[in-house]
Amino acid sequence: MLRSLEWRAGCLTLLNQTALPGSTEFIDCRDWRRVAEAIRRLEVRGAPAIGAAAAFGLVLGARELAARPGDFWPGLLSVAEELRGTRPTAVNLFWAIDRMLSVASRYGSGADPAAVTAALEEEAVAIAHEDEAVNRSISVNGAALFPPQSAVLTHCNAGALATVAFGTALGVIGEAWRQGRISRVFADETRPLLQGARLTAWELKNEGIPVTLITDNMAGWVMQRGLVQAAIVGADRITANGDVANKIGTYSVAVLAKEHGIPFYVAAPVSTFDFSLASGADIPIEERSPAEVTSLGGVRTAPEGIDVFNPAFDVTPNRLVTAIITEHGVLRAPYTEAIAALRDKKGC
Amino acid sequence: MLRSLEWRAGCLTLLNQTALPGSTEFIDCRDWRRVAEAIRRLEVRGAPAIGAAAAFGLVLGARELAARPGDFWPGLLSVAEELRGTRPTAVNLFWAIDRMLSVASRYGSGADPAAVTAALEEEAVAIAHEDEAVNRSISVNGAALFPPQSAVLTHCNAGALATVAFGTALGVIGEAWRQGRISRVFADETRPLLQGARLTAWELKNEGIPVTLITDNMAGWVMQRGLVQAAIVGADRITANGDVANKIGTYSVAVLAKEHGIPFYVAAPVSTFDFSLASGADIPIEERSPAEVTSLGGVRTAPEGIDVFNPAFDVTPNRLVTAIITEHGVLRAPYTEAIAALRDKKGC
Repeated sequence: MLRSLEWRAGCLTLLNQTALPGSTEFIDCRDWRRVAEAIRRLEVRGAPAIGAAAAFGLVLGARELAARPGDFWPGLLSVAEELRGTRPTAVNLFWAIDRMLSVASRYGSGADPAAVTAALEEEAVAIAHEDEAVNRSISVNGAALFPPQSAVLTHCNAGALATVAFGTALGVIGEAWRQGRISRVFADETRPLLQGARLTAWELKNEGIPVTLITDNMAGWVMQRGLVQAAIVGADRITANGDVANKIGTYSVAVLAKEHGIPFYVAAPVSTFDFSLASGADIPIEERSPAEVTSLGGVRTAPEGIDVFNPAFDVTPNRLVTAIITEHGVLRAPYTEAIAALRDKKGC
Repeated sequence: MLRSLEWRAGCLTLLNQTALPGSTEFIDCRDWRRVAEAIRRLEVRGAPAIGAAAAFGLVLGARELAARPGDFWPGLLSVAEELRGTRPTAVNLFWAIDRMLSVASRYGSGADPAAVTAALEEEAVAIAHEDEAVNRSISVNGAALFPPQSAVLTHCNAGALATVAFGTALGVIGEAWRQGRISRVFADETRPLLQGARLTAWELKNEGIPVTLITDNMAGWVMQRGLVQAAIVGADRITANGDVANKIGTYSVAVLAKEHGIPFYVAAPVSTFDFSLASGADIPIEERSPAEVTSLGGVRTAPEGIDVFNPAFDVTPNRLVTAIITEHGVLRAPYTEAIAALRDKKGC
C-alpha cells in the first residue's frame, strides 16, 4: 500500500515527492531539522501528511533534547515553533503540533524527558494511524455521492501521498471506482509544481483507475463538453463558515463547476478545519518563489526581468462548495451551523 | 519594430517563435514546404500571422511552378490545399489562401505563370501591409474602452508575434498603455506551449509595459483579489453569432470574468470572422500531441501509460463576450446583427 511516510525505530522515512514520477526515492530523517527542510521543500506535502510528518519531527526533536543535558522544555517549544513556521496555510500542521504539545503538557516540568519523549512518540504514531482510519471513513462517506459511471475532475493531489495513506479526494475516488460509481478521472496537471501530473496521475495509474491528464486551463472546456459530472478536491484549511483554502487553481475549478451546474466536493478530515477563523479572508496564503513559475521541469520558460505572482493557495468561498466530505459525514450548507455541530461533536 | 515575418527578394523570413525567449532565431523559407512545416511546428503562429505566412507560402509555390515546365494550375491548387491543411482552427489561414486564389483566378488558364506569380506576390505583400494597418486601427478602437490606470489580464499571445506587426489584443494593450489607460498586464503563461510566458511576457517587457506572469490557474484568484479590471484576448475564429474560438483556456478566463463582473474583450480583424459558420459548435478544434502536456523541454513531467486530452483551442460562447474590437469599430451584443452588418459593409 502506498504510504507517504513511515516511522520505524526512531527514523521517519519520507517518500520524496519532488522526485516522482521519474524516480522513487526515500528520505530517512533522523534529525527534526531534516523533517522541517522536507516540509519546506515539498518533499513531503499535502495537509494531513505534513501534519503527521511534523508530529514525528517533534518526536525526533524530543529524542535529541532528552539525550543531552540542558533544558528540555524550552528546547521542545523551540522545535515546535520551527516546525510550525515551515508552511503557513495548511492548518493540519498547527493542529498536529498543538496536539503533540498538549500531550507533553500533561507532564510536569520536572518530568523525565525520556518519558515525555515516549509519550510523544505514541501520540505521533496515533496521529498517523488515525489518519489512515479517517481517510477510510472519508472514502466511504464520499463514494456514496457519485452516481454510477461518473467521470470526475480533480485538482492537485489529495491522494495517499498527501496524507499518511489512502488520501482524501483520491480516497473517495478510489472507493467510488471500486463501487462502479466513478469510471474516469480528469486530472489537472496543477502548475506550477505539477502535483496533478506527477503525483495524482501516478497514483491513479498505479491503482488502475483510468486517468486523463489535462493542463489546468482545459478544465472549463472539459466541463463545457460534458466530459465530467463532478469535481472533487482536498483542502488545506477550512474555516468556520465553510470557506476552503486549497491549492492555487481550486477556486477557478469551483467557479467553472458552478457555471456548468456540476457539484463541487471537498474531502477533508476534521483536522483540516480551523474553527478559530471566521472566514477564508483570515487565512494566510503562502507565496512561493518566482522560479516555480518562470521555469518548468528545470527549463527556464520566461524572460528575465519580469514580475511574477506565485500564491500557493487560493480560497474558495462556501457558496461554491456543494458538500464537504469528512470522516463524520457529509456537511452541506448552511456551513456555519454544520461546522459548529461538528466542532461540538468533536469537542474541539 | 517587432515583426513576426518579413518578405524580401523571394525569401520569407520567420522569427522562430519556438526558440523564444531563450534565443532570437530566424528561419529563411525559400520553399513553400518549409513555410507549411513552420506553420505546423508553430514556428510561426497566431491567426493573422499564419494567414500572411501562408500567402507568402503560396507565392513561393507559384514561383517554383512557374520556373519549370508542367501544369501550373493544378500545382498551384495542390500547394494551396497543402497549406490549408497545416492547421484546422484559425480561419485567417483559409481566408488568406482564398484571397490569393481569387487573385490568381482572374487570369485565364493560358496566362503566363510568371505574371500570375507576380500578381500573387503583390497580393501577399498587400495582405501583410493591411494586417499592420488593421492592427493599428484595432489598437486605437480598443484602447478607448479602458478607464485610466487599469490592470488587465491576457491569455496566450495576441501580439506582434501573432500578427505581422503590432498585434491585436497586445496592440490594444500597447496603445492603452501609451494613453495611460493600462498600467499593468497579468499574463497567463498558457500551457501547454507557454505562449504567454515565452512570447507575451517577452513582448511586453521589450515594450517596457509592466507585466506580471502567472500560471493559468491563478487567473481566478487574481480576479477575486481585485488585481485586474478587465480581460482581453485575441481570436482564431469568430462565427456569425459571435462565438469565439481561441487558445485553450480562453473560455475559462471568460467564465471567471463573468463571475467577477469584469469585461471580457476580444480583439480581432475582420479576417478572423467566419461568416459561413452559424455558431462555435461548427468550428473544428485542433487536437495536438500528448507529448505537449506530458513533457517540456525534453523533461518528462508525467508518468507513462496515462491518457491525455490536448485540445489547442476552446470556444467561448457569445454571451460571455463583452465586446469584439475590430478595425471597423467595437461590436457588441446582439452579435448576430452586428456581425451581419460588418459583413455587409465589407462585402464578404
